[in-house]
Amino acid sequence: MGDHSARIYPVILSGGSGTRLWPLSQPHRPKQFVPVVGDRSMIQETIMRVMDKSDFLAPIIVSGESQRHLVVDQLAQIGVDPAAILLEPAARNTAAAVAIAACWIMVNDPEAMMMVMPSDHVIQDLESLYVAVRAATAAAQAGYLVTFGIQPTHPETGYGYIERGVPVAAMDTVHEVVNFHEKPPLALATRYFEGGQHYWNGGMFLFGAHNYLTALNEHAPDVAAASQQAMERSVVDGVTIRPESASFMAGPDISIDHAVMEKATNTAVVPVDMGWSDVGSWDALWSIWALDGNGNGVNGDGFVLDGAGNLVYVSDGPPVAALGLQDCVIVSTAEGVLVAPRDRSQDVKKIVDHLKRRGTA
Amino acid sequence: MGDHSARIYPVILSGGSGTRLWPLSQPHRPKQFVPVVGDRSMIQETIMRVMDKSDFLAPIIVSGESQRHLVVDQLAQIGVDPAAILLEPAARNTAAAVAIAACWIMVNDPEAMMMVMPSDHVIQDLESLYVAVRAATAAAQAGYLVTFGIQPTHPETGYGYIERGVPVAAMDTVHEVVNFHEKPPLALATRYFEGGQHYWNGGMFLFGAHNYLTALNEHAPDVAAASQQAMERSVVDGVTIRPESASFMAGPDISIDHAVMEKATNTAVVPVDMGWSDVGSWDALWSIWALDGNGNGVNGDGFVLDGAGNLVYVSDGPPVAALGLQDCVIVSTAEGVLVAPRDRSQDVKKIVDHLKRRGTA
Repeated sequence: MGDHSARIYPVILSGGSGTRLWPLSQPHRPKQFVPVVGDRSMIQETIMRVMDKSDFLAPIIVSGESQRHLVVDQLAQIGVDPAAILLEPAARNTAAAVAIAACWIMVNDPEAMMMVMPSDHVIQDLESLYVAVRAATAAAQAGYLVTFGIQPTHPETGYGYIERGVPVAAMDTVHEVVNFHEKPPLALATRYFEGGQHYWNGGMFLFGAHNYLTALNEHAPDVAAASQQAMERSVVDGVTIRPESASFMAGPDISIDHAVMEKATNTAVVPVDMGWSDVGSWDALWSIWALDGNGNGVNGDGFVLDGAGNLVYVSDGPPVAALGLQDCVIVSTAEGVLVAPRDRSQDVKKIVDHLKRRGTA
Repeated sequence: MGDHSARIYPVILSGGSGTRLWPLSQPHRPKQFVPVVGDRSMIQETIMRVMDKSDFLAPIIVSGESQRHLVVDQLAQIGVDPAAILLEPAARNTAAAVAIAACWIMVNDPEAMMMVMPSDHVIQDLESLYVAVRAATAAAQAGYLVTFGIQPTHPETGYGYIERGVPVAAMDTVHEVVNFHEKPPLALATRYFEGGQHYWNGGMFLFGAHNYLTALNEHAPDVAAASQQAMERSVVDGVTIRPESASFMAGPDISIDHAVMEKATNTAVVPVDMGWSDVGSWDALWSIWALDGNGNGVNGDGFVLDGAGNLVYVSDGPPVAALGLQDCVIVSTAEGVLVAPRDRSQDVKKIVDHLKRRGTA
């Protein structure tokens, strides 16, 4: 993949709780540990995506103590030995999560690069991913902090956007970054979508570990100091590493975008169209589902009579019969059944809040 | 209750399958065996309604072989010893079901009367029922074939109607019957409803066993002959009686209304307003449910957020969260989950048909 000397650690961030996929995701079983699409969980799919490619090294998983046994189980199920499992004492957002992985690499393999990936996204077109990774690797070897720009399919208001500039010299699929934009209102999102210069920020990055830490030291020195000290004082138990709590938690809660990418000048974006989804809601899952002629998506032992535009998702719950419904999502698990109009998918977290207040979640 | 010499056998017809309450009712667990409202099953509620009233004798249950163990279990649970359990070799409609019960009474207690009741209806106001039974008993003792006329609450098109005539001499709550009407179209149902002379035919009757058989011999002699012969050749096993199959099945499939009530001249109707429902659909159940301020009815571990007019019925299935829904029915059982608009309740049988075709019901 690209230069044959490339050594890339997949750094897989497993921190999210995915409350918007309730009842499939639950506080004790976050979204990345669930087989949302296909037979493997999302974190397993994420790991397998970057296995058996010559440039990728064993993965580094960044997670928390409460998910440790889930991570270990998931890796064992697919027979993958990780390079490291880094357990954050508490969530301190992505800048610090990436920083402790970079610190580990600087100690163990200082010339290596790192490819940062959320653990709970779907990528349907792997060939397009690999083409983009090759371009990103070349740019990262030239010193760039590379982000992947997801080709938008609609004027989404729920994501940040990356605005591309001129191509980086001699790399026609890599562009300088003009700007990172926060989640836009619909009118602006529509302009971005139609203009062809903006991409969704999917939270995927590729860079040399030392380049990231250099930028972090310059633009967010408190994050760099906290992460570095926490790793120097970490407790190592085989591949499991526990950064020291007091140091780590002294750092601020800030995203890699705000801390580094929006401030650094050596950023680049590789556009990629790869059937990406963050599966951030049931509606998002419906939109990538293989639908029947009536726009119904059915998983497991469910069926729709006289209805259209529905997602019927049966995991380990009872079979579902949906009659006369339009544009609804119905989810059946052993722990709960959800029924809602698809356009209310973003409000599923209200249900989780309700259950929390009731003390049953 | 009325004349102190009255001896009345409750005759409880347990033949229906109640497919419109799927998934709560199932082919192996018809509606009358399910606790639809409250803790007791509908057949248990029906039996208990006519226990501990001085005139009522032990009940006669008319059912089929496939339901025998269910009937026996249900009776044992409430500690009731039946007078007889009559097992039809096959369903031959209500004229024959009532006829074999009448034949049993003619042999065992020939002066007794019989009160015919479906096993799967709800009656919320028992005092009104008992007042009506007293009036009906007096009329039956005078030789009438008495039917109970349910006070309509809306212009229902799914029931037959009974048109009342002048009061029977000296009984101001008993009326002669002018006519039985088939299920009417809406315009006619509205005229019936507004006219005040028409009642729903709820399938409840009270008459002397010999009066019924006399009328049956006159108006449907083939039913009378088949039933009588089947009972003469029946196999008796304690209280369980199996009418002889060949004789019974030689009779026609005809309702008591068509065979007798519409033809006899000694019919009478006792109007009664008693919170009756045949619970013939999920919508019918919603209409008798104790609803909250938003018109939501919830049973078991379910809740509604931002919705109105829903019935959320959790029996032995997972908890249900309904978000942003209007006028839907959601049912959660271990064997299946139903979701449909309430006004599609009549089409739930389509689901059962679908499952039958698939071979899973």
